[in-house]
Amino acid sequence: MLTFSIPALHEEKMEQARQYIDSLTKPPGSLGRLEEVAIQLAGMTGEIKPNIAPASLVFCADHGIVEENVSASPQEVTYEMAMNMVEGGAGISVFSRMIGAPLAVYDLGILRPVPNEKVINKKVRPSGTANFLKERAMTEEEAWQAIKVGYDAAQQAIREGAGCIIVGELGIGNTTPSSAILAAILEIDPETVVGRGSGINDEQLNRKAQVCREAITLHKPKKDDAIDLLSKMGGLDLAGMTGAMIGAAEMRTPILLDGFICTVSACLAELLAPGAVNYMILSHNSVEIGHAIAAKHLNKQPLVQLDLRLGEGTGAAIAYPIVKAANVMMKDMATFQSASVSQK
Amino acid sequence: MLTFSIPALHEEKMEQARQYIDSLTKPPGSLGRLEEVAIQLAGMTGEIKPNIAPASLVFCADHGIVEENVSASPQEVTYEMAMNMVEGGAGISVFSRMIGAPLAVYDLGILRPVPNEKVINKKVRPSGTANFLKERAMTEEEAWQAIKVGYDAAQQAIREGAGCIIVGELGIGNTTPSSAILAAILEIDPETVVGRGSGINDEQLNRKAQVCREAITLHKPKKDDAIDLLSKMGGLDLAGMTGAMIGAAEMRTPILLDGFICTVSACLAELLAPGAVNYMILSHNSVEIGHAIAAKHLNKQPLVQLDLRLGEGTGAAIAYPIVKAANVMMKDMATFQSASVSQK
Repeated sequence: MLTFSIPALHEEKMEQARQYIDSLTKPPGSLGRLEEVAIQLAGMTGEIKPNIAPASLVFCADHGIVEENVSASPQEVTYEMAMNMVEGGAGISVFSRMIGAPLAVYDLGILRPVPNEKVINKKVRPSGTANFLKERAMTEEEAWQAIKVGYDAAQQAIREGAGCIIVGELGIGNTTPSSAILAAILEIDPETVVGRGSGINDEQLNRKAQVCREAITLHKPKKDDAIDLLSKMGGLDLAGMTGAMIGAAEMRTPILLDGFICTVSACLAELLAPGAVNYMILSHNSVEIGHAIAAKHLNKQPLVQLDLRLGEGTGAAIAYPIVKAANVMMKDMATFQSASVSQK
Repeated sequence: MLTFSIPALHEEKMEQARQYIDSLTKPPGSLGRLEEVAIQLAGMTGEIKPNIAPASLVFCADHGIVEENVSASPQEVTYEMAMNMVEGGAGISVFSRMIGAPLAVYDLGILRPVPNEKVINKKVRPSGTANFLKERAMTEEEAWQAIKVGYDAAQQAIREGAGCIIVGELGIGNTTPSSAILAAILEIDPETVVGRGSGINDEQLNRKAQVCREAITLHKPKKDDAIDLLSKMGGLDLAGMTGAMIGAAEMRTPILLDGFICTVSACLAELLAPGAVNYMILSHNSVEIGHAIAAKHLNKQPLVQLDLRLGEGTGAAIAYPIVKAANVMMKDMATFQSASVSQK
């Protein structure tokens, strides 16, 4: 068991950022949400012109729950897409390149050996999680191990120069554990948070809600205990993401949240490490219905609304340039004084 | 007088783009609006993987109407900000650099000589427009001349390698002619389209609506005649933008629209060159209230919603990476076949 300590936001730097923004050559307030983001970044990093070089971290694992016919894609797609990611052809690969983010792909429990050393082998359970409708998904120790992989991954990326962490996932079936966990945390019926994932039909959608409902009845997870939730109904991918967010927040590094699975992991990170949420920026609003519910729980407004539902961290990579624009505003714009521009 | 011919969208390439998108390694439809943008780009350019290298064009001019106390900023700010733009410190300067867009700043009628050769001197009226509450803003010939400067600017940028044109403006007071023109085109009361520009107070806001109303009564502009509208109530900056949009559309080049003044110029471009609107993508929704009204008239949905109201083309430059992401998706993502990924 680890304990975490998340630093408070730097209020003084936020105020300094506010004042600096009003000295820039533009009408006051005219860059809208970019100004808000710049102030948030100052609070997180303690600098008004921080380094926010991005790094993408993707956590991959398989899910025993796919036995219950809750997913549109065959399970081997986890393995196939992990290979595609490191070979440069997946969504997160191309959008990471676009923004200049190194991409690290971690295998926390893909069902079969991955014969490509570019996929970082950190298998916690080589067979993926168990079917959580029948038994615990993993042990508490395994949940901690997967969290630690993510935590170390984020802190290593930051030591290597990253100033902004994009957290993504890959795991066929992973919207089902995400739905079960979110429903348990919020004590709401799973029906209100299950969505179509990569494209299931109506029958599968009902089945998915029923699976989550029965699993909650079986396991009686503690709604404020991230390890209990993860070990009973979780995914190794979710645990990795949770750890990465905590690792980044501890080092005062902004985290760009992606879609549904990512926001559920963010809820878990906040349970384990209160205050971690202050280091998170929500990149977009996913089509997946549970996303808005998790976003509301996190009290986050999305930066962009593009009807995305791909996952992998793609939404965060696509929205990153908006965060970059806020940073560029602070770093590169002239002030009224420096450019000799008259004010009202 | 010039006549323009705008090519139709390439329907066959749009269908080809649709099919290609469904072969990429992601759930069908999961990149939402990026997929729509990629299809639009194919229709515009006639290529499914087009060059969309951006270029920013900013048209600057002064406005005689500022005599009527309709603006928050002193008039010399047009001159000062033109200098700031070419020296790299304005919003459009820094965001253009961020996206790798060369920036060209055209002087169509800044009130005083600009002693910086990086500002391209194309003064059509060295004193700016006349006060259109009292007389025509400019002659019809001057409107044509300013349109021609914009038209040539866009086509030159495209010949030099641009595949996407960002059109911006700079001119203290230019939301007033924009409001008058939009109200005249739509035959609505100016009150419904006037906003606070760079930050006027309630009294000035009422005055601004009244000025527009009286000018429309005085000039009786023809609502479907762009030259009549521009010469009676226009700005040289608006005319330049109008010409740039037509020049880009003629060469099948996507145009990224920015804020209010830009969307009003887009309405004028469509009047002069029907079909030009098919080459326009609306980057964001401005806080300026007339923007949504012009956007609706153009039948365009914004890509992002960031509460921007700076102008200069900044919103288009900030949103450009979203368009770039759509392009990168087409150019760089693997297909199910190329990456050996299983489909449902």
